[in-house]
Amino acid sequence: MLNYKNVALGKTRSSIRELYEYGNKRKAEIGEENVFDFSLGNPSVPAPEEVKTELKNLLDNTDAAVLHGYTSAHGGYGVRKKIADYTNARFKTNLDADCIYMTCGAAASLTITLNALVNSSDEVITFVPYFPEYKVFAGGAGAKLIAVESEENTFQIDLEKFKLALNDKTKAVIINSPNNPSGVVYRADTVKRLCAVLKEFSEKTGKPVYLISDEPYRELVYDKQTEVPYIMNYYERSIVCYSYSKSLSLAGERIGYIAVNNEMEEFSDVYAGICGAGRALGFVCAPALFQKLVENCYDKISDISVYKRNRDTLCSALSEYGYTFVKPDGAFYLFVKALEEDAEAFAERAKKYELLLVAGRSFGASGYVRVSYCVSPEVIKRALPSFKKLAESYK
Amino acid sequence: MLNYKNVALGKTRSSIRELYEYGNKRKAEIGEENVFDFSLGNPSVPAPEEVKTELKNLLDNTDAAVLHGYTSAHGGYGVRKKIADYTNARFKTNLDADCIYMTCGAAASLTITLNALVNSSDEVITFVPYFPEYKVFAGGAGAKLIAVESEENTFQIDLEKFKLALNDKTKAVIINSPNNPSGVVYRADTVKRLCAVLKEFSEKTGKPVYLISDEPYRELVYDKQTEVPYIMNYYERSIVCYSYSKSLSLAGERIGYIAVNNEMEEFSDVYAGICGAGRALGFVCAPALFQKLVENCYDKISDISVYKRNRDTLCSALSEYGYTFVKPDGAFYLFVKALEEDAEAFAERAKKYELLLVAGRSFGASGYVRVSYCVSPEVIKRALPSFKKLAESYK
Repeated sequence: MLNYKNVALGKTRSSIRELYEYGNKRKAEIGEENVFDFSLGNPSVPAPEEVKTELKNLLDNTDAAVLHGYTSAHGGYGVRKKIADYTNARFKTNLDADCIYMTCGAAASLTITLNALVNSSDEVITFVPYFPEYKVFAGGAGAKLIAVESEENTFQIDLEKFKLALNDKTKAVIINSPNNPSGVVYRADTVKRLCAVLKEFSEKTGKPVYLISDEPYRELVYDKQTEVPYIMNYYERSIVCYSYSKSLSLAGERIGYIAVNNEMEEFSDVYAGICGAGRALGFVCAPALFQKLVENCYDKISDISVYKRNRDTLCSALSEYGYTFVKPDGAFYLFVKALEEDAEAFAERAKKYELLLVAGRSFGASGYVRVSYCVSPEVIKRALPSFKKLAESYK
Repeated sequence: MLNYKNVALGKTRSSIRELYEYGNKRKAEIGEENVFDFSLGNPSVPAPEEVKTELKNLLDNTDAAVLHGYTSAHGGYGVRKKIADYTNARFKTNLDADCIYMTCGAAASLTITLNALVNSSDEVITFVPYFPEYKVFAGGAGAKLIAVESEENTFQIDLEKFKLALNDKTKAVIINSPNNPSGVVYRADTVKRLCAVLKEFSEKTGKPVYLISDEPYRELVYDKQTEVPYIMNYYERSIVCYSYSKSLSLAGERIGYIAVNNEMEEFSDVYAGICGAGRALGFVCAPALFQKLVENCYDKISDISVYKRNRDTLCSALSEYGYTFVKPDGAFYLFVKALEEDAEAFAERAKKYELLLVAGRSFGASGYVRVSYCVSPEVIKRALPSFKKLAESYK
């Protein structure tokens, strides 16, 4: 009699969350320093100092009734204008404030966008490995998520497989680069070819397909030469779902935005759909204080050098121990090939060495585990002998 | 091809918002002090001083990575425990932390609750006059909102009409007391009889019906003798949707909660449905900083004496000028009978006197206008001559 889809969803424990809670129990048993918890993607680096300064400044110098009052449903004009201008300067786009819709973070950006675009029985394509909640968000909007296998040794998009997945039910494609859980960044060449396929498909069928870029990890790239292509430069029917969760280490505050490419013909319908979906889902407006914070901190980034250091330490040690993986360009995840076929069994064995790794099944990929390295460098250092012993146990 | 339900919703301007924007334009033309804007329900009283103190305290004394990091999806344990304990002490309930689910405000509380309960083609009953977004929220969850007329001169629930509306599609009933837009509080006797009807219906049909109490205005009552009944004391299948938007003047920050009555048999399914719906709608967690704020400010209230003063000034003056209305017990709205049959025409004529009043059609009631008196007392004082002239224009 209740909505059993949502009841079932609420009863399904996320495997990530379950592992995290096992870790907490284990820490209580054998001491925090002896458990190596690589389960969660919660930023370990604090927000930049400017965030605290600016929040206190806002509290001290803004009338509280204004500071904490409602903003327009799509967000305050000031912050939307700043984001549009910054995006234009950085990516040579031509956005204005009315292309931006402020949201409660990337998840909200995605659910609102999907609810604006899809009708029931539509399909949304994404690429393996993928963030598990995509399936939940697509399902919540009434659509079906189709996961397309990627190129095996690079995790770049396999365009032939993608072409086979496209059909007259396809309404949207979600990409996530830098990727959770692989850390891979799609090269400009990959994005270019993906968009060419989409254009060809639309021309042939007369059917528009929207490209959604989920970008919570955009700023988390570790090498100068790594460029994260901006999809609006490649494709007209494109929508960027951004979040400050990782770039400003504000994951719990729920602040982000949707940017709709104003070069698409039906821009005003898409933007109206987003406004309508935001209303129907109950979002009202993005948190007012953090909208005002972003208005002044949109170009700041947490100190991500720790993540880079963690990545480098892990990659060189794990490689030495005989593990294989695609070296991540960004985000704070390493997607490692399990040392036996069954990644669940591998993750189970890792627990004996107090290593908490998430088996890849939730990400649509079998045979892998995810290592979230958004932890202090000391945790990495202490965990290395365990990674070594785990590898040796397979020899 | 897009989701046209949401596109249409995004294109429909809210009549309240439209009036507000007309007001801004008019203020620019003739000066702010000459326009009497009673359109919006944005708190005019600032948050209590403790809010600022506590926010700064949190910023200064909590590790930023923890302060701004993810909380559990249903909210931090600390704040949920405080809310449960406070509710138990105040209303003699027996809730624990796991009955509470933290949300991004009352709208989110409602959409999450509805998405947990309803399946498509279910009906949700509410009472005229009602908050217009109920229709949007019910529709978004796939259900149909049924609005039942209230008793004419009291706006208390008309139980005979309610009985006629109950049928085998009814899944839930939403009450809102103190009410937006009438300010009326349902008497204990009304609630008791409403619950008796629900129980009788369930016993006869074997069909559970959930009672949802939307309570953003719970703390905004102005007379000592006015008691706002707590529905969990009257009905087992009850769910409270609360928000701190008005009690702490934090409307833009999006912080509230859902409390599920643990006396209902299927409690764990309902709570799981809420967790699942929150996930599917993309809420992730309620804003972390404001969860921690509420943990310490859950029993504070903004200085509502201004609203009381506004109510009393308005009621006595409007009564003197010949207007009729039910005197509001709470909230910050006065629902006034239009001086002609067509309330839209009446609101249009009010504009000539620079009075911005919302015609009642959006609230499901014809022949009324809503006066939002969450404004400074000076605005009320300056507006009175206009109310007088408007009344005289009908004589």
